[in-house]
Amino acid sequence: MAHDCSFLEGLTLEADQYSFECGRREAHATDWGTQDEDAPTVPDAVVWPESTADVAAVLEAATEQGVPVTPYAAGTGLEGNAVPAEGGISLDLTRMNDVRDYRPEDFQIDVGPGIIGSAVDEYVADDGLFFPPLPSSGDISTIGGMIATDASGMQTVKYGEVADWVLALEAVLADGTVVRTGSRAIKTSSGYNLTELLIGSEGTLAVVTEATLALAGRPQQVRGGRAIFETLDAAAAAIADALQTEIDVARIELVDELSARIANEYLGSDLPDAPMVFLEFHANHGIEEEIGLCRTIFSDYALERFEVSDDDAEMDRLWEARRELAYATRSYDPDRETLHPGDVTVPISGYPDIVREAKRVADEYDVTIPCFGHAGDGNLHYTVLANPTDPDELARGERAYREIVELAIEMGGTATGEHGIGQGKQAYLEPEHGAGGVDMMRRIKAALDPTGTLNPGKIFPDDDEP
Amino acid sequence: MAHDCSFLEGLTLEADQYSFECGRREAHATDWGTQDEDAPTVPDAVVWPESTADVAAVLEAATEQGVPVTPYAAGTGLEGNAVPAEGGISLDLTRMNDVRDYRPEDFQIDVGPGIIGSAVDEYVADDGLFFPPLPSSGDISTIGGMIATDASGMQTVKYGEVADWVLALEAVLADGTVVRTGSRAIKTSSGYNLTELLIGSEGTLAVVTEATLALAGRPQQVRGGRAIFETLDAAAAAIADALQTEIDVARIELVDELSARIANEYLGSDLPDAPMVFLEFHANHGIEEEIGLCRTIFSDYALERFEVSDDDAEMDRLWEARRELAYATRSYDPDRETLHPGDVTVPISGYPDIVREAKRVADEYDVTIPCFGHAGDGNLHYTVLANPTDPDELARGERAYREIVELAIEMGGTATGEHGIGQGKQAYLEPEHGAGGVDMMRRIKAALDPTGTLNPGKIFPDDDEP
Repeated sequence: MAHDCSFLEGLTLEADQYSFECGRREAHATDWGTQDEDAPTVPDAVVWPESTADVAAVLEAATEQGVPVTPYAAGTGLEGNAVPAEGGISLDLTRMNDVRDYRPEDFQIDVGPGIIGSAVDEYVADDGLFFPPLPSSGDISTIGGMIATDASGMQTVKYGEVADWVLALEAVLADGTVVRTGSRAIKTSSGYNLTELLIGSEGTLAVVTEATLALAGRPQQVRGGRAIFETLDAAAAAIADALQTEIDVARIELVDELSARIANEYLGSDLPDAPMVFLEFHANHGIEEEIGLCRTIFSDYALERFEVSDDDAEMDRLWEARRELAYATRSYDPDRETLHPGDVTVPISGYPDIVREAKRVADEYDVTIPCFGHAGDGNLHYTVLANPTDPDELARGERAYREIVELAIEMGGTATGEHGIGQGKQAYLEPEHGAGGVDMMRRIKAALDPTGTLNPGKIFPDDDEP
Repeated sequence: MAHDCSFLEGLTLEADQYSFECGRREAHATDWGTQDEDAPTVPDAVVWPESTADVAAVLEAATEQGVPVTPYAAGTGLEGNAVPAEGGISLDLTRMNDVRDYRPEDFQIDVGPGIIGSAVDEYVADDGLFFPPLPSSGDISTIGGMIATDASGMQTVKYGEVADWVLALEAVLADGTVVRTGSRAIKTSSGYNLTELLIGSEGTLAVVTEATLALAGRPQQVRGGRAIFETLDAAAAAIADALQTEIDVARIELVDELSARIANEYLGSDLPDAPMVFLEFHANHGIEEEIGLCRTIFSDYALERFEVSDDDAEMDRLWEARRELAYATRSYDPDRETLHPGDVTVPISGYPDIVREAKRVADEYDVTIPCFGHAGDGNLHYTVLANPTDPDELARGERAYREIVELAIEMGGTATGEHGIGQGKQAYLEPEHGAGGVDMMRRIKAALDPTGTLNPGKIFPDDDEP
């Protein structure tokens, strides 16, 4: 489905702002969730806008020409969110990475969508501020991408998700209309909440060209550590209990015994291959009491070891297994590949159940599924590993993957806690939201992008409509 | 514009579920913001649904018959949000006030939209839980009304707004379609955020029939008190400084000298007619350090008195002037009425400016404008009082009112922090959001309610469209 993008030459773009060159197009065909065996759709052109006016000009012309436009930035999405499923233009926003305005007196910063998350933190560090909801990929992912999927991360348990820290947006609709949503007031009830509608819409409704982010002051006390449990059940139950007791924790990450083994092997560590919980506490007062209460609760659940430190180097050491886990998993088994990455999220009381069910499913289908997650949100990342040359194992892996998502939805949870629907989770949109909810989403899509220009083939399982 | 509502007799409603009787219709014609001189539009019928099926049946039939439907509950809105501007049916949701499910282990409760806010708090009190974002009218306003305007209140500075505590909704669209939005997971990025779109949409997109609310645990330490300043400038600057220092305060309310005088006269109090700041602190650790830090900051700003207590009766006494302010203002000047209630909200660094400007405007137009507000949010309630028999004073009052809203928008703030647009703030929708933003809202309205059945005459300044 090649689209003629020669109209780009008629716009006021500089020569280095667009390309039809094969290598550059191929570099925009995939994201982190794309597997080797996928045959990715390569965009027909790549455009690097440098201003809101550039974005508006490209979108207006593309809509007129019937050419799809898929926003792209770091390409770190897991669900194919930024993959140009129907070809057309890959709109690479990484050059719009500037700080537009910074108002530390209001804890606010205005940035372009292409800025890397950690660059925001660096920019505001001297004032003791930070952007709390960065995902684990915050040092390579862009703010625009985080807004597109309403990202979250390890600190969401204490500070909330990206949507909680975005006050206002500038965005361009498919027809080239520039809109501003929200305000600099931290509370408003003026009209429909367009900001929240755009956040998490994966670039299917508009292209975000500027974001006003809220910032927080760094806590005066930080402690980090690790708990090791005898069984996974005990670890998950301890976490649920701690959260139900409202322990004030800034990070609480579960790692199952298989993931622990993967990390231990990768690091050559002498830790037991046992379920681990990684912890970080932030406070201005009373952090030791909070840590003590957490230890007391954890002690009721087959706790083997509980270590917390206030020393930076020691905290780093205690967290090493968690930090290296993504890399370790990738190189764990040369015969097996990640079938699908991604996550599910459930109410906290169901966390022990979903963790147990994930292991049961792995046993039942005889596939390898290391699990970890932002446990404080009820979030579980489960990575189905399968041998790509073994059709039977692949099929079992697919069934295992599906069953865990379906269980999460049955438990009142969600098919995707923080990576969006993209291409990977489309089959679960209707089971989660019902036909009425999906129809409501489709109506909104059709109202704001009637030609279906923006990121077609995403979120909705069947793109005949809108 | 009378509408024939006789079709109601053909639905499966019980005889006591609808009425064409004059007194009952008139009781649904106004809200708290309606002034005596207004000639309110009386609905043609009142319906009291008792189930989601009732709501769906009424909406489907009304849409078919071209009859407007305006959701109604406690009638405590300030901007005419629930007033049936074009007649038709007033859909009174107060009978749908039940608790549907309660999951303390997840800090969640499912309620009907007609439940009173404080009834939720009472229901969960034995488990040490509460619903933090209740507005000041929480003991008479309904959860459905709070969702309709995305209400907030005194504790929003610490805990956030209503939208931050609503996880999922059941709602009925104008055509009778029942939709479920959100999930019980505290974090999701599955599809468009329909929950946030409906919150604050004032019943113009759908009628909420059930809400899943999040709850918090009550803090272990509570302290309440009051600071008195020599000047309003000093009080506002002290508040901004305290917030910029990230004092962990649960309530921080500014009351200007005129409001203080009104309250003092009403209560026969011997307090000075001086600007006051009412404070409440919630914490599990270190509350005394936080209060001490607040006192130190306040001391830099012409502080006259700073009193904080941990005794319930004493806290009540210290807060008396703030608590009685709404009643006191209503009966303050027998010759003058409230021209408009309502609020504006600005970024915190602009708070001293908007407070100063409000007083300047009052002087310039020679009208009485007592001010108070949820200062921690940058929120200012300013009540223009005017003599209804004096056309010149009325005109000056209108100009003063407008000028303060315009100033707030210029400062990057919002025309309405917590009461919605309704009828009262329609003129400011486009100045705040621009033509593009308003057009985007209109497109959404037209997509979800193409016949314009739901709450017509609200939010949008001109109802020729959607």
